[in-house]
Parts: sequence; C-alpha cells; structure tokens
Amino acid sequence: MAETQLRFGILCCAEIARKVSRAILLSPTTTISAIGSRSLEKATAFASENHFPESTHVYGTYDAVLDDPDVDIVYVPLPTSLHLRWAVRAAEKKKHVLLEKPVALNVAELDAILAACESNGVQFMDATMWMHHPRTEKMKQLLSDDQRFGQLKYVHSAYSIAEEDDFMKNDIRVNPNLDSLGALGDAGWYCIRAILWAHDYDLPKTVTTFPDPVYNESGVILSCGATLNWKNDGKIATFYCSFFSNLCMDIIALGTRGNLRVHDFIIPFNEKVGHFYTVANSMWAELALGCGPEPSEFTISTDLPQEALMVREFARLVHRIRSGEAKPEKKWAVISRKTQVVIDAVVASIKNGFVPIEVVY
Amino acid sequence: MAETQLRFGILCCAEIARKVSRAILLSPTTTISAIGSRSLEKATAFASENHFPESTHVYGTYDAVLDDPDVDIVYVPLPTSLHLRWAVRAAEKKKHVLLEKPVALNVAELDAILAACESNGVQFMDATMWMHHPRTEKMKQLLSDDQRFGQLKYVHSAYSIAEEDDFMKNDIRVNPNLDSLGALGDAGWYCIRAILWAHDYDLPKTVTTFPDPVYNESGVILSCGATLNWKNDGKIATFYCSFFSNLCMDIIALGTRGNLRVHDFIIPFNEKVGHFYTVANSMWAELALGCGPEPSEFTISTDLPQEALMVREFARLVHRIRSGEAKPEKKWAVISRKTQVVIDAVVASIKNGFVPIEVVY
Repeated sequence: MAETQLRFGILCCAEIARKVSRAILLSPTTTISAIGSRSLEKATAFASENHFPESTHVYGTYDAVLDDPDVDIVYVPLPTSLHLRWAVRAAEKKKHVLLEKPVALNVAELDAILAACESNGVQFMDATMWMHHPRTEKMKQLLSDDQRFGQLKYVHSAYSIAEEDDFMKNDIRVNPNLDSLGALGDAGWYCIRAILWAHDYDLPKTVTTFPDPVYNESGVILSCGATLNWKNDGKIATFYCSFFSNLCMDIIALGTRGNLRVHDFIIPFNEKVGHFYTVANSMWAELALGCGPEPSEFTISTDLPQEALMVREFARLVHRIRSGEAKPEKKWAVISRKTQVVIDAVVASIKNGFVPIEVVY
Repeated sequence: MAETQLRFGILCCAEIARKVSRAILLSPTTTISAIGSRSLEKATAFASENHFPESTHVYGTYDAVLDDPDVDIVYVPLPTSLHLRWAVRAAEKKKHVLLEKPVALNVAELDAILAACESNGVQFMDATMWMHHPRTEKMKQLLSDDQRFGQLKYVHSAYSIAEEDDFMKNDIRVNPNLDSLGALGDAGWYCIRAILWAHDYDLPKTVTTFPDPVYNESGVILSCGATLNWKNDGKIATFYCSFFSNLCMDIIALGTRGNLRVHDFIIPFNEKVGHFYTVANSMWAELALGCGPEPSEFTISTDLPQEALMVREFARLVHRIRSGEAKPEKKWAVISRKTQVVIDAVVASIKNGFVPIEVVY
C-alpha cells in the first residue's frame, strides 16, 4: 500500500537546496509543499527553476513555511549560524527537521536543537548524504569482517577542494558571521564522521589538532587537521581538510588483516555507481620481490542517488512516528552530536596551542 | 665499450642481502666477489643458496671482506646499531659504501659515516630502493607539472605491515640493542623519505609526533606518526608507520590543481610493472551530483627491478670516480642526512611530550 507522501518545506534558496530538492522529488515517499526565502522573488524563481510542484507554497519569510500546515518536514540549508534559531523554531512548530551540516557552531547549540526536537516529538537527522549510499553499508560489512579486515588500527580521512577566488572572498563558508567553522565545519565534518563511522561511533579519548592551521583574515579556518587517539591498542586516526587543494575525498582504513580505500566517499564520481578498494592478508613474494594480492575493486550500483536515499530514510522514520509505530529514532541525533563533540575538541585544541583535548560526550 | 664489472663485498647474511645479492648479479655492471659473516658456515651456505659466483671469497669475519683487494664496494645490511662501526671501517679501507636503511641511530652517527666516506673519497648511498624505480621519476614529473598538479599542499604517507608474533618477539627491528628505532627506522624511514622527495628535499620547519606511539616492552617503537610543517602557505605532511596493520605503502600528494596516489611505493606489487594514479582540475557535475574526471592509472614497466637499478646507479657513480671523471656524488649523502634529521626530530618530539621540534639540518 502506497504511503501518503510526506511534504517538505525548504528554508532558503541555498545552492545545496537545489540538489536536495531534486532528491525530495526523486524519492517516492516525499514531495515539496513550500519554500521560503527572505526574498519572495528569489523563492519564486528557485521553485520554478528546480521544477517544484505547481502546488508549492512560495513565501517571502521562513516563518511562513513553519506555520504552513501542509508542511510535515523542514529542510534547513541555512548558514550554520542560523541553525539554532530556525531548527528550534521548526521543532516547536512540530515539524520534523532535516538539518544541513555542519549542524551547529558548537555542541551547546546542537543540544538546544536536539532538546527542541525531543520535547516536540519530531525526527532529527543531519544531511550527511554519504551515510545513506548502499556502498557505505558494504564498506561497513568489510570493516566488521574479522577475516578480511581484522581489528581496526588506523583511519585516515581527507576532504580537500580547490575553491575559487570568489568563494574565498564571498562564500558563506568563509564568513565569520555565518559559518565560522570554515573548512573544519564544511569539509572536516565529513572526515570526522568517516572516522567515527569506521569506529562504530566509539569516540576517541583525545583530539590533538595539527600545528598551524590556515585561517583567512577574519580568522575562519581554511585548512586544518588533527589526530584522534583511542588510547586502546594504539588505535589512532588522522584527518585533513582544506579549501586549497584539488578535490580529494579519501578514507583509508587499516586493519590487522586488511585495508579499505575509497576515493570519493562524500560524493561518488558517478551518482549511479560507487567503488571502493580492499586487500586482505597481504604477503611478500619470495625475497620480497613483490607482494600480493593486489587491491580488488568493489562496485555498488544504486538506482536512487544517495541524497534521495537519505530523504527516503528520513520519510520512513517520520512515517513510523505518524503511524504510532515508533518514537523518533535517536541514532541520528547521537551521531550528529558525536561529530560535533569532536569538532569542538579540534577548536579547543587550536585555542590551547594544539594540545590534546579530552573528548567528553 | 663494456666497463669493468665492479665487485661487491657483502657484510652479513641478512634476509635483505638475498634480494640485494640478486640485484647485484642482475645489474650488468656489477658482480659479487666476497661475503663475510661471523659464521663461516652460514656465509658458505648463503653464497651457495643465492647463486654467488664460484670465485666468491667466503669469510668468517667482516674485517676480511674489508681487507680483500678484490672488493670495490661494500654493501652493509647489518643491524642499524652496527652501521657506524662497519660503514666507517669500510670507508677507511677505501671501499665505496652502499648502506641499508635506516642508515644510523641518529644524525651524529650518520655524520661520522659521511665524514669517513668524504675523507676517503668513496661513494655513499643508502639502499632506499624505490628511489630508483622509473615510476618515481614519472611521479616526480607529475608533481612538478604546474597544470596537472600545481603547488604541493599536503602529503600523506603510510607504511604499515602486519608482523607475525615471531617477528614481534625476535626480529632485530624490535630489539633495543640492534634497531632501537623500531618501526620508525624500518617503516617510517620510507614515509619520511617520500615526503621529502615530494618536497624536493626542502626540509620542514617543525616536526610534531602524534600523541601515544606504541612501544614494546623494551621501549622500541612499534607504531607512530607525525605532522611535518613548512610554515609556508599552509604546507604540511603527515606520516604513519606501524608493525600492526596489513600491508599499506601509500603516498597521497595533494596539489592546488591535481592529486597523486600510489599504493605500493616501497615495493611494487609486481617488480616488472608499477602503477600510480592521478587526477587534475576536478570539477563538480551540475548540482554536484557527481564529479570528474575520475583518477587515471599510469603504468610504468621496467626490465630491471628497482633494487638492480639502484645497484646500477651506484656502480655508475663509482665508475665515474675511478675514471677520474667526477668526485663522489654528494646528493645521496644529503638525502640520507635530511631523512635522518627528520627521524631525530620525531624522536625528540616523543621525548619532549609530542611538542613541535624545530628541524635543523
């Protein structure tokens, strides 16, 4: 039996909202019923350009979207500094909240958002799309395989992107009043999430930022990295994020028996097909003249792109709540909070001269 | 005109000496004339098992090899703690010195070795084989290409190997009296060399070891890593080395316009064919639904394995000296010393609580 389509309201006309709008319309269980922008003209053009349904309500304020009874879920792609205000307000209006990453400027803000979602009984999820690609689950199966991977010892994750001059001067992600976490929030978020994902969300004991991050004139981070330490069998991880180098979206995970590599974990090169690479039980050839086996490529196809799978999963959780079958799924709030806790530790390590910072959930 | 074959004497029957002996016999300009071990019986068996020429002089001491007038070059694969003594003595006997890595326990020891080589007019080179693979030069061409790579921003290098229980208990590389640098000397050496190579041997300003290296009961490092900082346009590098995880021999170099990846930089999976992967000028697809181009694979074939190319290059330098055409080539001493200087900084950072250590050549 086809379930009722859940109706999204979208807060602002961010570039990323174009991709997520397409995903909402691609996902069989969702549609778009409203969009709000501070400029009605901009919202009208956005709705038209992105093929929103004719019936979409177009508003010149965000509040109007939250007040619209035809909106079930609010998607919030606003600049990070506005998340606290609008995500809380959406929850208070009993709208389920799909929140762009980075979710907040710090964990205190995120806690206010999560508390509002909890007390209003609405679902929360951050919009980290790659979590929903079927490749991600396949890679997790490998990491959990004692024979093919063994015990996880080290994860390295990197997200770099060579941003243009215009971005470096004008983008909200380098504006201290809008996205003060800069590359750490935009790019580092993914790397930290990847590391936690590989560790089944077991938080590290300490986080130590690499010396000498790069900042812009306003003090916004443009590149940085850190070491995460579990103080357990030598388990560590490192990440590096940057707005300065050509696109790289790598996870390298080293286990006692095998390795995993992926080079496009955040956005697959091709939305229909994802690859990853593994090798297990490597051995030297006689005299160490070579070694084998060589890494194998795994290919995972998907009919729906990862962002549509994210929207579909969110809708599934909301449907369960509306039918009385389940309460809001807490898992996504916990994962978001753990990611934010590590980001806060990176910031604290920088502020304290790159010393190890204890991670407290 | 065929040049005279240069004659190697080999100090000890280390496992790695089997591979290098094969390389000496494969290289057209070299042969083996002597081997010495503390056990004459062991040396005799080694010479036979490794197909040494019938004419090879087999000795029960190292000194006998150094005193043999039929030896032009000495290859020293002894445990690191013995390098100072035997490399210096070899130079004093006017033998050219091919020295296994890690070259010394610290830069003071290496300086004594280099001084002995210089004052005796003999060639010095460390046995870092991958430097001599034709792939290495091809990768360097890419890193130097402004259009396909741009300015180098970040290098990550990792060498891990899952060592067996027997190695962990008995190998000289975890014995504090023989190879007290442990994984740092054995595996980290390659990673540091790779980073310096990518930077045209421009030394970093500081080195900061990641917190919490793993040691064995004798205090020998079994896994560690560090951040290298150039304090110039945000250029940094990281490395990770370990005896705990399945084989990984990666370099990832990120430039402003392109990236380079190689997964078997130390010993190619196949000695005849090496691969590396590059991508340049990556762009998002419309709506960032994907990105491209995908990385391209480059394949470099070689008739002679990299260790034979190393031996051939060493012989070429020695022939130039013997013909009076040139003095000993200093480049290899400088590269070794820079690698050792960074290793010393890693050790100093550990001893001082993982603080940044200024790198002084």
